[in-house]
Amino acid sequence: MEEVKLFWTWSSPYAQRIVWALKLKGVEYETMYEDLTNKSRSLLEYNPVHKKVPVLLHNGTSVCESLVILEYVDETWNTAARLLPEDPLARATARFWAKFNDDQVLAWAFQAYISQGVEQEKAKEHTLEKLDIVEKQLTGKKFFSGETLGFLDLVFGWMAIYLDIVEETSGIKILDKERFPLISAWMENFSHVPVIEENWPDREKLISKYKHMRKHFISAAAANNGTGS
Amino acid sequence: MEEVKLFWTWSSPYAQRIVWALKLKGVEYETMYEDLTNKSRSLLEYNPVHKKVPVLLHNGTSVCESLVILEYVDETWNTAARLLPEDPLARATARFWAKFNDDQVLAWAFQAYISQGVEQEKAKEHTLEKLDIVEKQLTGKKFFSGETLGFLDLVFGWMAIYLDIVEETSGIKILDKERFPLISAWMENFSHVPVIEENWPDREKLISKYKHMRKHFISAAAANNGTGS
Repeated sequence: MEEVKLFWTWSSPYAQRIVWALKLKGVEYETMYEDLTNKSRSLLEYNPVHKKVPVLLHNGTSVCESLVILEYVDETWNTAARLLPEDPLARATARFWAKFNDDQVLAWAFQAYISQGVEQEKAKEHTLEKLDIVEKQLTGKKFFSGETLGFLDLVFGWMAIYLDIVEETSGIKILDKERFPLISAWMENFSHVPVIEENWPDREKLISKYKHMRKHFISAAAANNGTGS
Repeated sequence: MEEVKLFWTWSSPYAQRIVWALKLKGVEYETMYEDLTNKSRSLLEYNPVHKKVPVLLHNGTSVCESLVILEYVDETWNTAARLLPEDPLARATARFWAKFNDDQVLAWAFQAYISQGVEQEKAKEHTLEKLDIVEKQLTGKKFFSGETLGFLDLVFGWMAIYLDIVEETSGIKILDKERFPLISAWMENFSHVPVIEENWPDREKLISKYKHMRKHFISAAAANNGTGS
């Protein structure tokens, strides 16, 4: 009997990827809910370097970093549909865009979410520029991987849930359907895949949590700058 | 006949990884030297997103991002010794530390190199803390991968060359042998592997180039802050 546990919090876009991957693979696992304001001893033990979710515990050994976990899940439970393609060049392309998403698209959208004023405007512009690049990757495709859902769809999947949350909680408009018709169409396709639809976090709860977190980030930034908010 | 071209500059720690990997695999390739102050049309065409070296061109198709290229090289020329281990857990561990190196160790060392005063002191402290974590990974091992050179040794390989350059050009001490005995021993082992030794960039040329670049970074930062340097 193998033991699979996922340390996560319901509102983390990184943890969400792993839920999707495990469900797609049909892997049974136990959910270990983490309150990130009061991290468990287990989380600190299993991810001592970053102390973050998600952490996948497989037969007692931990795997950390969501992109690393996605590849681990794909390589370990490789009987079901593969997430990454088999061809080395297609794999390299997928890894390239996954890094681009995490370092650029998600990073700038997060920056727009936690900032205000001129800084927010700048972060929003960067986000839009990065999304222009993402938009081109979807030319002629239903999913990032082609006709069916794959690794990159799980990586970019946060956009379908969280861009709306960023817009709603921080008062900026990012996803203009005229500027991003292909991303908008992909979001529709993505959100109707059964595994995705069945594991969609509650929008109202997310808005409430992300509103609260935004206040916290903004007052922390103001304190850091030595300026009032 | 396959065509392999590597776009690089001799002084880039990221490009250096790919040279080592191709040499270890015995892959014949053509070197396309890039002057990063005057980038070629080819570089802009083959890496339009980041416009950076290294870029590997294989039969006309480009692969970018050094960690992505390393995995591509490993998967494509897989008859010779593998860089990554076969076991999914060992592979995940290697990918975790590769990301830790790029996002944390190399990033903070670079920050220490391009800064001065209090900011440099802070960056140096972060670098040392990250190196403490790296140090522990070498317990009981000759190389990061164990008894023989592997993927992680190429990823961390920059330390053997460039920590010295950072120290020499920016006047700080990072690699204390008493604090980092295992990293110091690994550097010795690493630098004596024939492929590594035979492809070592010229130290005097590196110092001259990195001194020059440091001046440029520091005056650019001062201009950005609106303060004189």
